[in-house]
Amino acid sequence: MKTRAAVAWAAGKPLTIETIEIGGPKAGEVLVEVKATGVCHTDAYTLSGADPEGIFPAILGHEGAGIVREVGAGVTSLKPGDHVIPLYTPECRQCKTCLSRRSNLCTSIRATQGKGVMPDGTSRFSCDQGTVFHYMGCSTFANYTVLPEIALAKVREDAPFDKICYIGCGVTTGIGAVINTAKVWPGANVAVFGLGGIGLNVLQAARMVGADKIIGVDLNPAREEMARRFGMTHFINPDVVGRDKVVQAIQDITDGGADFSFECIGNTQVMRQALECTHRGWGESIIIGVAAAGQEISTRPFQLVTGRNWRGTAFGGARGRTDVPKIVDWYMEGKIEIDSLITRTMPLDQINHAFDLMHEGKSIRSVIVY
Amino acid sequence: MKTRAAVAWAAGKPLTIETIEIGGPKAGEVLVEVKATGVCHTDAYTLSGADPEGIFPAILGHEGAGIVREVGAGVTSLKPGDHVIPLYTPECRQCKTCLSRRSNLCTSIRATQGKGVMPDGTSRFSCDQGTVFHYMGCSTFANYTVLPEIALAKVREDAPFDKICYIGCGVTTGIGAVINTAKVWPGANVAVFGLGGIGLNVLQAARMVGADKIIGVDLNPAREEMARRFGMTHFINPDVVGRDKVVQAIQDITDGGADFSFECIGNTQVMRQALECTHRGWGESIIIGVAAAGQEISTRPFQLVTGRNWRGTAFGGARGRTDVPKIVDWYMEGKIEIDSLITRTMPLDQINHAFDLMHEGKSIRSVIVY
Repeated sequence: MKTRAAVAWAAGKPLTIETIEIGGPKAGEVLVEVKATGVCHTDAYTLSGADPEGIFPAILGHEGAGIVREVGAGVTSLKPGDHVIPLYTPECRQCKTCLSRRSNLCTSIRATQGKGVMPDGTSRFSCDQGTVFHYMGCSTFANYTVLPEIALAKVREDAPFDKICYIGCGVTTGIGAVINTAKVWPGANVAVFGLGGIGLNVLQAARMVGADKIIGVDLNPAREEMARRFGMTHFINPDVVGRDKVVQAIQDITDGGADFSFECIGNTQVMRQALECTHRGWGESIIIGVAAAGQEISTRPFQLVTGRNWRGTAFGGARGRTDVPKIVDWYMEGKIEIDSLITRTMPLDQINHAFDLMHEGKSIRSVIVY
Repeated sequence: MKTRAAVAWAAGKPLTIETIEIGGPKAGEVLVEVKATGVCHTDAYTLSGADPEGIFPAILGHEGAGIVREVGAGVTSLKPGDHVIPLYTPECRQCKTCLSRRSNLCTSIRATQGKGVMPDGTSRFSCDQGTVFHYMGCSTFANYTVLPEIALAKVREDAPFDKICYIGCGVTTGIGAVINTAKVWPGANVAVFGLGGIGLNVLQAARMVGADKIIGVDLNPAREEMARRFGMTHFINPDVVGRDKVVQAIQDITDGGADFSFECIGNTQVMRQALECTHRGWGESIIIGVAAAGQEISTRPFQLVTGRNWRGTAFGGARGRTDVPKIVDWYMEGKIEIDSLITRTMPLDQINHAFDLMHEGKSIRSVIVY
């Protein structure tokens, strides 16, 4: 069959809308009609050419929501008509990592996913010019896509696609970092570095679990208002307090340091500040942002020997098939907010504009609707 | 009154045995007759002049055991005749950190301890040349010393001083890192970098809690035999496998990486290896060794984002008054071994020889008996 798709032909080039061939689902695979997809910084990172693992031509996009249209042989947990969110971090429930129950980083299809192909080693996408590769196992910048059964979370059918698609990456990453990775406790003091989409989701999760002081740090004063609406109680602009005084400012507000901090930018210097602003004895700092290839974090080991804990999280530590449906429920129940984070909604043929808006800092999240 | 003591007059100079004046215990203080004390690398570090917080002249020594001889006003938990182990990390049970129950790093007397004086701001030691300072709040290189009540663990009276003194630092640091900080679980795979006294205690604790593979890493092949007796199941000599192949060697033995690793050297390059050899998804690396002033640890943030956890420990995360008596019990019950770690026992006037043996790598632990 055919699908419309935005194809990334090469690093740094605009996407073009094409009609391409898509192979039906093989054993263990599922054909999904994508109804909506967010445009995320990670798509832009790969498109820029900075991602050393980027493969072209490819159909980017990893933050989608849609409907199952066909299932391959042996698929038992999904059927046509089911509403689903694609998972770039799958959950096979059988690999060493899934069985460990200590991590969400399922390894069952990691090798092929990283090569832009399905678990059998082939791509389902092609066009006159040849093979088009998958991206993060999702490729949601296409009206139809194929995924392994283990990479789809089944969600309730009354949830709007153009909002819950964001749960496929940003929402779960921010909220999961708080509840799965850090396990922030009621009354904890929290510092959040970077008040973009991830940071705002960290804020609202910290509020949801009963954090006390919730400090936001951002160079952009325009982000303060929205951040306060999402739970921020104190705002620090490093250009106002002094970029080398941020750690002290957080220690002053919290009587010694934050219990938890979250780096939501991808800046290795900020990662160091985020660690060092946490409380001696028990402070935990969680790296969420993705640093540029080759960059390193540093600190004096004394920071750790005196009880600080340096950690990271991917996809918010969420096990996709288990946890993503719960976050959809929380959204539908009003426990978390998404609507105001969706700055723009647009059709697929405007996708390059969505990237432009992101680069210009004019959107928290743009969503493509098919 | 008077006491014999080994006085450190200046950085890099040998200690000299002196008879000095010691003031009786003030309110909240306790006079202890030291019966035995270990000579630890931390004493050597300060004596060398490399410790930026070193103060001279001082009575070094922080790994002792002795008997209470006199208590000051208001002391309620100890009485003359009690057997005690001095604590360089006190446990006041009233400060923010003690009350948090999340850390052992009691802050109640930190400021004065760092200045070489008692909590009232004065020293109990003096000689014809003037004030002699305390060290780490302990000063066990003296036959009599004075400590705050909160810096003494009361222990059973049938335990031999010349063995349990080692619990005052090295034993508790190594064992506590495993049971308090890492909380190693039964069946875990463990990697231990550096098989000196701390490393051997990490090994025996890992064995005690039921670890599976217990991998030791050391450049000195002579350490293998003793390490195997303390629980090591696999030995890696970086000069045999290749210094840049240690991480891979550990991943090969453990099918992906150690669940826990411990750095027991104080080398920042080894700290990085110790982190990176742990398992993707959940591996935890604990820094025990103390790095030279100004040195920094580094890694790619990807190591943390993919689930590794970088931590540290001081005094093994042990709350001294609560946990040290338990470790003494474990020694007396045969659950842990100390005797074979005490390489030499000697009188105070041979203390410079004890430092020489340590520098030459000819002792695991030398103990001074009074």
